[in-house]
This record gives sequence, C-alpha cells and structure tokens, in this order.
Amino acid sequence: MATSAPSFQVRDSQRYGRPESGWRLRLYTIIFEADTRAGRLFDVALLLVIIASVAVVIADSIASVHARWQTQFQVFEWIFTIAFTIEYIARLACVRRPLRYALSFYGIVDLLAVLPTYLAILVPEMSALIDVRILRLLRVFRIFKLAEYVDEFGLLGQALHASRRKIFVFLIFVMLIVMVMGTLLYVVEGPANGYTSIPVGIYWAITTMTTVGFGDITPQTDLGRVIASAMMLIGWGTLAVPTGIVGAEFTLRRAASSSQPTTRTCHECLSEGHSPRARFCSDCGAKLPPYQHEAAEAR
Amino acid sequence: MATSAPSFQVRDSQRYGRPESGWRLRLYTIIFEADTRAGRLFDVALLLVIIASVAVVIADSIASVHARWQTQFQVFEWIFTIAFTIEYIARLACVRRPLRYALSFYGIVDLLAVLPTYLAILVPEMSALIDVRILRLLRVFRIFKLAEYVDEFGLLGQALHASRRKIFVFLIFVMLIVMVMGTLLYVVEGPANGYTSIPVGIYWAITTMTTVGFGDITPQTDLGRVIASAMMLIGWGTLAVPTGIVGAEFTLRRAASSSQPTTRTCHECLSEGHSPRARFCSDCGAKLPPYQHEAAEAR
Amino acid sequence: MATSAPSFQVRDSQRYGRPESGWRLRLYTIIFEADTRAGRLFDVALLLVIIASVAVVIADSIASVHARWQTQFQVFEWIFTIAFTIEYIARLACVRRPLRYALSFYGIVDLLAVLPTYLAILVPEMSALIDVRILRLLRVFRIFKLAEYVDEFGLLGQALHASRRKIFVFLIFVMLIVMVMGTLLYVVEGPANGYTSIPVGIYWAITTMTTVGFGDITPQTDLGRVIASAMMLIGWGTLAVPTGIVGAEFTLRRAASSSQPTTRTCHECLSEGHSPRARFCSDCGAKLPPYQHEAAEAR
Amino acid sequence: MATSAPSFQVRDSQRYGRPESGWRLRLYTIIFEADTRAGRLFDVALLLVIIASVAVVIADSIASVHARWQTQFQVFEWIFTIAFTIEYIARLACVRRPLRYALSFYGIVDLLAVLPTYLAILVPEMSALIDVRILRLLRVFRIFKLAEYVDEFGLLGQALHASRRKIFVFLIFVMLIVMVMGTLLYVVEGPANGYTSIPVGIYWAITTMTTVGFGDITPQTDLGRVIASAMMLIGWGTLAVPTGIVGAEFTLRRAASSSQPTTRTCHECLSEGHSPRARFCSDCGAKLPPYQHEAAEAR
Repeated sequence: MATSAPSFQVRDSQRYGRPESGWRLRLYTIIFEADTRAGRLFDVALLLVIIASVAVVIADSIASVHARWQTQFQVFEWIFTIAFTIEYIARLACVRRPLRYALSFYGIVDLLAVLPTYLAILVPEMSALIDVRILRLLRVFRIFKLAEYVDEFGLLGQALHASRRKIFVFLIFVMLIVMVMGTLLYVVEGPANGYTSIPVGIYWAITTMTTVGFGDITPQTDLGRVIASAMMLIGWGTLAVPTGIVGAEFTLRRAASSSQPTTRTCHECLSEGHSPRARFCSDCGAKLPPYQHEAAEAR
Repeated sequence: MATSAPSFQVRDSQRYGRPESGWRLRLYTIIFEADTRAGRLFDVALLLVIIASVAVVIADSIASVHARWQTQFQVFEWIFTIAFTIEYIARLACVRRPLRYALSFYGIVDLLAVLPTYLAILVPEMSALIDVRILRLLRVFRIFKLAEYVDEFGLLGQALHASRRKIFVFLIFVMLIVMVMGTLLYVVEGPANGYTSIPVGIYWAITTMTTVGFGDITPQTDLGRVIASAMMLIGWGTLAVPTGIVGAEFTLRRAASSSQPTTRTCHECLSEGHSPRARFCSDCGAKLPPYQHEAAEAR
Repeated sequence: MATSAPSFQVRDSQRYGRPESGWRLRLYTIIFEADTRAGRLFDVALLLVIIASVAVVIADSIASVHARWQTQFQVFEWIFTIAFTIEYIARLACVRRPLRYALSFYGIVDLLAVLPTYLAILVPEMSALIDVRILRLLRVFRIFKLAEYVDEFGLLGQALHASRRKIFVFLIFVMLIVMVMGTLLYVVEGPANGYTSIPVGIYWAITTMTTVGFGDITPQTDLGRVIASAMMLIGWGTLAVPTGIVGAEFTLRRAASSSQPTTRTCHECLSEGHSPRARFCSDCGAKLPPYQHEAAEAR
Repeated sequence: MATSAPSFQVRDSQRYGRPESGWRLRLYTIIFEADTRAGRLFDVALLLVIIASVAVVIADSIASVHARWQTQFQVFEWIFTIAFTIEYIARLACVRRPLRYALSFYGIVDLLAVLPTYLAILVPEMSALIDVRILRLLRVFRIFKLAEYVDEFGLLGQALHASRRKIFVFLIFVMLIVMVMGTLLYVVEGPANGYTSIPVGIYWAITTMTTVGFGDITPQTDLGRVIASAMMLIGWGTLAVPTGIVGAEFTLRRAASSSQPTTRTCHECLSEGHSPRARFCSDCGAKLPPYQHEAAEAR
C-alpha cells in the first residue's frame, strides 16, 4: 500500500514511464504534462492544430470548396501530417516505455492520424482514410482534462458501469425483438414493398424501434401496418426501460453524494450522524467536539 | 409449506419431471441441466447451432446470396432440421411428463422449428419454405434462458410487473387518443391525401404519437397540420408518462436494494438490522453494543 | 361536514340525483349502477354495443369493405343509433336532475353519439360526423371503473396535476422556440424548399422538436441544415425536461406511498418512527404497545 | 447589507434607475412596474399588441392571405411600428440611466423591433421587409417576464444550471460521435447516395442520433445500413443520459423541497429544525420538549 501512488492520480507518468532527467524529462514535461507554462501552451497549440486539421478535412469534403482550395488544402494536409509525425516521434522518444505508449488508445489514434496521408502516396485511392484524424479530437477530453474538471463525469461513467449488465440483457432482448419483427415484415411485405431481405427488415425494425423512422422503407400492406403499429407501441414502452435503468442509477448516486451524513460522533454516548452545525449531542446532551470538515477533506 | 420446493429454484426439473435413474436421468442431466460438464457443453453447442440456423435463414433471404449458395443452404437446412428433430425426440424421451413438455412454450417452439421443413415435402408449393424459416427464428427465444443467468433481469421484470396495471390503463388511454386522432385526420384529410381509411389514420396516429414519424403519410391540409401539431405536442408529454412510471419503480427498487439496513446484531436475542441510531434492541429491550462503522469498512 | 357524503364515493347518484323509488329507481339501478346483476349485465352489454358500433364505423371507412357491406352497415348504423337513443332517453328519464346529466361530459358525448345520424337525413353530407361515436369508447373507463380499480391511476393524475404549472411554463417556452425556429427556417429556406409560410415552418419545427421528423418538409440549404441541427440538439435536451418533471413527481409519490414511516410512539420516552416489527423502544428500552396496522386502516 | 434591497426583488428599478418624482416617475410606474392599476393595464395591453403584431407577421407569410390583405397588413405594420416607437422613446425618457436600458437585452430587442421598418423606407429593395418581420418576432421573448410569475420555473432553471457541466461534457461527447459517424457514412455511402460532404453526413448523423429521422438522406448500401443500425442503438442508449441527468436533479430538488425539516424549536435557545428523534437541543444542550406531530397536523 505504501509503494503504490494514489490510483486516481495515476496518469501517463505511471503508464508510459516518466524519464529520470535530461532533455527527455524536459520534453516529457512539455508534451505529457500540463503543470508548466510550456506544457500548457503546447496542449492548447496541439488542440488548435487538431481542430484546424479536422476543419480542413471537413471543408475539403465539400465539392465547391474542394474545387477552389484543393491545392492549399493539400499543403495544409502535409503540414499537419508532418507536425503530427514529429509530435508522434517526440512522444515515442521521451517516454521510458515507448511500446506501451504505442499500443495505448491514444498511441494508436496518434499513429492512425498520420498513417493514411503516407499510405495515400503508395495507394492514392485511400485518401478518404485521412478522416481518421477526427478521432484525434477525442484528445480534447485529455487536453482539457475535462473528465477531471467535471467530477460528475465520473458519476456518469459509474452509473453506466453499474447498469452495464442490465443494458446488455436489454440489448439482447431488443436484438431478438428486432430480428423477429424484421423477419415478420420481410415475410408479410416482401421484396416488392422494399423489404428485399431479412437484414433489410432488421434494419427497418431497428429504425422503427428506436423511433428514428426514416421512412425510406415502410409497410404498405394492411397486415404489415398492423404489425408495425403493435411494434411501435412495444418500442415505445421499451424506450422507458434503459432510461429508467440509467435514471435510477443517477438519482441514487446523486442522492448519495449530496446527502452524505457526517460521521461525527458524540464522545459521551457514541451516537452518530450529528449535523455539522450541531454543538451538543442530540442523544445525551453532551458537548460535541468542534466539526472538522471531514467531507471537504475526503473530496 | 414443508413439501413445496423454494419457488425461485423451481425449473424444468419440477415442471416436466426429473427421471429417477438410468439413461433417462443421464440424458436429462445433459439436455435440461447445466451443472455437469456435458450439460454445459450441450447448451453451448445447441446455442451455436441455433445461431447458425438463424444465420442461414437470414443469409438465404438475400437474393444474391440465395442465387449462389442455394444448394448448400438447403443441405444445411436439412442438417439443422434433423439435428433439432433428434433433440426434440430426446427431450420428449427423457422427461417424466412428456405431454407437459410438449405443451410448454419451449416444447411448442421446438416442434414448430422442425415441422415446416417436413410439411414442405408433402406440399412443396407452400411458398418456397419462407413460412418455415420465420418460425425457426422463434427458436432464438430459447436464448432467453439467459434471462435466468442475469440477476438484474429479475429487477427489470419486477419493475415492469409492478407497473403492469398502470401501463395497461395507459395503453387503453393511448388507444383511445390514437383512435380519435386517426379518425379526425381521416375526416379532415381524406383519401386524397393518403388517409384512405380510419385504420390507416390510426396507423398514422400511432406512427406520430410514438415519434417514429415515417412520413409515408403526412397531413397536407392546413387544418390537418394544426391537429397533427397539437397531437405531437400531446404525444411528447405522453411519452414522459410510461418513462416516469417505470423509472420510478426502478429508482425505488434500486434504492431498496442498495440501502440495506445494517447487520448490527443484538448480543442477547441475536436479532439483526438494528438502526445505527438505536441504543436498545427493538426485539428484546437489551442494551445494544455501540455501533462500529461496519458500513464504512464494508465499502 | 356531517351531511356531506365522503367525497371520494360521490358518483352519479350524487351528481344527477338518485330517484327515491318506483320504476325510475329500478331503471336507475340498472343503467347507472353496477351493484346488481342486471346493472352489471347492462354495463357489459353497453360496452359491447359501443365497441361493435365503433368497429362498424372503422370497417365502413375501408373502401373495399364499404363497397360490399354498405347496406348491412347502414342497417347496423340505425340499430345502434336507435339503441343509443333509447338509452339516452332512459338516462334522462330516470335521473332526478336530467339537465345536469345532459350537460355533464358523458351526457354530451351520449348526445353527440346519436345526433349525427339524424342530422345526416337532413344534410346527407355530414355522415362523416358519425365517427364522433368513438368518443363513447371513453365510457370504457367508466364501465370498467378502471380508474377506481387501478389505484395508481390516481397517482398518475396527481403527478400530472402537481406538475401542471411546470408543464405549462414549459409549453410556452417550447411554443416560443418553435415560433422563432419556424420563422427562421421560413426565412432561410423559403417557399422554394417547401416552407411556404410561417405556419408551415412552425409545423415543421414542432415535427422536429418532438423528434417525430416526418421528412415531408426538410431543410435543403446549408444554413438551414445548420440551424436544424442546432435545433434538434436543443430539442433533444428539451425532451429530458418534461420527462424529468413527471418522473420526479412519480418517484416521490411512489416513495412516499411505499415507505411511510409509522407514527408508532414509545409510551415511556415518546420516541417515534419505530419499525412495525419492533417490540421494545430503541431509545429507552421500554416495551412498546402492540402494533396496530394504522397505515392499513388509514388507506 | 442594510442598504441593498433583497436581491430577488431587484428589477428594472435597480438596473435602469427609478426616477425620483414628477411625470417621469408616473410614466416609469406605468411602463416598468405592475403594482398600480395603470401599470397592470399597460402590461396587458402591450402583450396583446405584441401578439397581434406577431399574428400579422405570421398571417402575412401565407401567400393567399398576403394577396388579399396586403394593404391592411401594411397599415397595421405601420401602426404597430409607431406604437412600439413611442413606447421605446417613453422607456428611454423615463429611466434615469437611458443608455443602460438601451444596451440591455430588452432594450436592444425593442430597438430591433422598430428599426427595420424605417430602414425599409431608405432601402426599399431590402428583400420585401421579411428580415424585419422575423426580428419583430424576437419581441415575443418579452413574454418571458412570465417566467418570473411561475416559481417552479426557478426549480427548472436550477436543475438545468446544476446539470450544465454534465450536459456540456455530454454535448462534446455527442459532437465527437456525430462527427465520426457523419464522416464514416460519407466515406461508406458517398455523394451518390446523398452524402455529398462531411457536413451533410454530420447533419444526417444528428438527425439520426436525436431520433428525428427525416429520411431525406438515408443509407443505401449494406455496410452503411449496418453502421446506421449500430448508431441508432447507440443513440437510443445515449438518449437516456441527459434524461437521467436532469431527472436526477429534479427528483432530488423536489424531494428536498417536500421533505422540509421540522420546525421543532428549543425552548432555551430558540434554535429550530431539530430532528424528530432528537431529545436534547443540538445547539445549547438543553432538553427538548417532546415532539408533537406538527407535520401530521400541518398536512
């Protein structure tokens, strides 16, 4: 217990290995950490470059913009790619365990963000893969350390984690309904009405159960419409289930975090749960020791 | 009370009758139970075969796949059918009350999964076996046995069960709204705008109230759009109701299961669950030992 | 206070006036009450006739069915109309305050259920109004006294009633958003893209905000799509609000009704809230008086 | 503390400066306050005029109505504009700090509501005054003053305010999913199937994730439909999250406001809010008088 750092504070330093000293430590401090001025500047600059690179990819996909700015975009594309490549190599160079970084989630995303541009030289048709760079935007979560600033994000994760088995069972249930319904409508409506195969029927059933309802495929026969109507009502009731599951978790966690009773104890009669503003024990009338903001410290 | 087994553990053994001994007991152990190695292997194998058979049905429904693999699929079809037939006969053979099994939900599904393939020999014209395949898909419901593995599914069932009367009343209410609205739009829009009959109007109203909104039939007149707008806003508010019902049940059940009373025990009468604030046993009046933060330690 | 009957039991007898004696009392017992065998039979028969009459109206709206059974349906129509007319007159005849009945909700619905058929003789074009009869189906709530059987339905009403001001403010808020958004898209997209007027734009905005999304009118310009995207995300978050409002009411009411603390009081130290199974006071150790199911009686 | 007015009552009087006396005070009382008969009348009249002006804008957008009532609407338009101009000048005239009013939200809206009609005289070609009319609609926001009347709106605002960080993190998360999914479908489906650019793909992804599902753009390829299906199921689960967040806040706030502590008062130090179980004052240690069911009586 004494040797392990507090688990909540374990970050990249633990995972990839913080170098001992020298230029590698200095580089590591800038790239992986955000406690120094340089580190913070680097993080903000990186985020801006990522946003710019994503913006270029998005803008380039619009035909009229592409026609006009094609050359400039290609130049930018290469600037971004080279910048990201340098960053990737720097990251590999300054950590003590480069392989662990390379195989981590962000390591893979960082690699995928530069790879397609190089591959596109060999196989020019795969330039579409550059869009993988959007995944780098996930870095926004890391750079802003949003998840840390917003405590409640942890609560969200906890609620989802606690509900994961229920949600899994629920998804299987939905899958079965969707398969039966998709097959049913394929049989009832047939290829003539757009239900060309069972997978298409399942696609339609998912569309309907989730209340998205594109309307690209719709039942045309009377029987098909009766079945679809029954299914929509079922889907409606079903919608209440995951909402109820996650909602219940949330309510309980919020309630628990907002109404934590103090563990303040009367030294005379050992009664507990005295309010922070209480000065005398409500059970035996003895004076209570001064309240010491334990909750604030614990957090 | 002494003769009845604990109701929650009652499974097929109680329902269909577990044989006393001999090869029937051995077969029963494999097919109906999952406590032995063979039994568990059988269950997994059966599940895989069911999934494979469903996959073949789904794949066969795609025109291009059907054109190419038609013969292979037919062979597979017969292999699955024979395998399921043997399984069905084995099930009938090893239970003590075969009729009770045959008339149970899974018994009927098991029979329906094999019957149509045989019937197609006698009446080959019966629309290319399609009706067969969809019935086989019902077999997928057997995976529902999974529901028993996951405890939380019970909580889900309880919440829905506890809400069933409310949901029933709610459904009647929705039905009436949907009928009135469907009729109203049939009268207002008329067959010219796609509302060819009151049932079609009701189908549209269900589509709209559930927020699916296919858009295959939409109001075209001004009055129809005003009514539809009002209806959508009503449907929106209505959506909150079943969500609220099930959500409330869920929250309470989760709260009840997570705020278990203490395990504080009276040293005199060994009664449990005394409140942390209690100073005397509420069962025998003896003084309780001071409460010692068990909850904090347990967590 | 002594003269007024318990308000919850006040029914038609109080409202319309139960006759003192004679044939009117007998008729009243059959038509308005359900405590005698004849009364119960009448209620069930009436419900069946209403369902049948609605079924005829619905079936008659289908062109192919209408073409074939037109004459029979017209005969049925008149039988139903005459039956309902007799029933209406009987109701008027046997209550002590006929006007109060005639002006009550069910009195108006009962009249509207027969009026259109007679009016259609004079003005044959208004036969579509016969559909008003569907409203008589609301009687299903009265005949089955569903609302009474299902206690929780009251809870539903309470939750909605308690939330009515919040929902009202919320609706005004939605109205404003919908008007601004509808106007915005009318200006941005214009009549060329289907937004022929501001009311049409508002209709589209309601369609979108409620996530119905028919797709009969959709933004075609880039700016329109950006605005629509922002609006959908707003609408999504907004959807959480009424759900949260009603859900919160529900949860609290359910919680209150399921965990009412006892008011059981220790006669020695006057401490309260002792569990129903407690036998000794948990505060002073004195023996508690036996628990007397007060909650059960109160209900 | 003594000089500042209670913060909740601080209104325009504090913000713009209430004049000391004379006709300006009288005008101020009428226009900005609602405590006198004249002030209340003015507010109601103004609201009616705003609604009328908005109604005219909406009606004028309908082609057939515009063709017939064009001249009358233009007259009304000018009447409203002049009325609003007089009102605007009066507001400026009677406050002590006119600039502060002019730069406040309502001040700007009030100006924008009249400005465009005048500008259209100088530049008559400015697209037929349509831009004017939409800005006038912003005036409808003044009805928001209604928000102050309804207390529960505060609860709503609190719940949203307390959830704002969670909702912000959630929106970033949704944004990333939507961008990745939109790009994915742009790559998979391509311009041939309607996904003409990444922004269009993102628009489609938002349409789908929010379950609006217009259906103007839909996946046509098998792979696209598989991805869309997965996405819809994800979107469905995601929908539960903000609902859960806001719902949890709501439930807790409602619970807190409905389970107010007792008003039990210590006879020695007059401190309040002692728990029903307390036997000694937690503030001064004096023995409390026995608890006397006030809650039960109050209810």
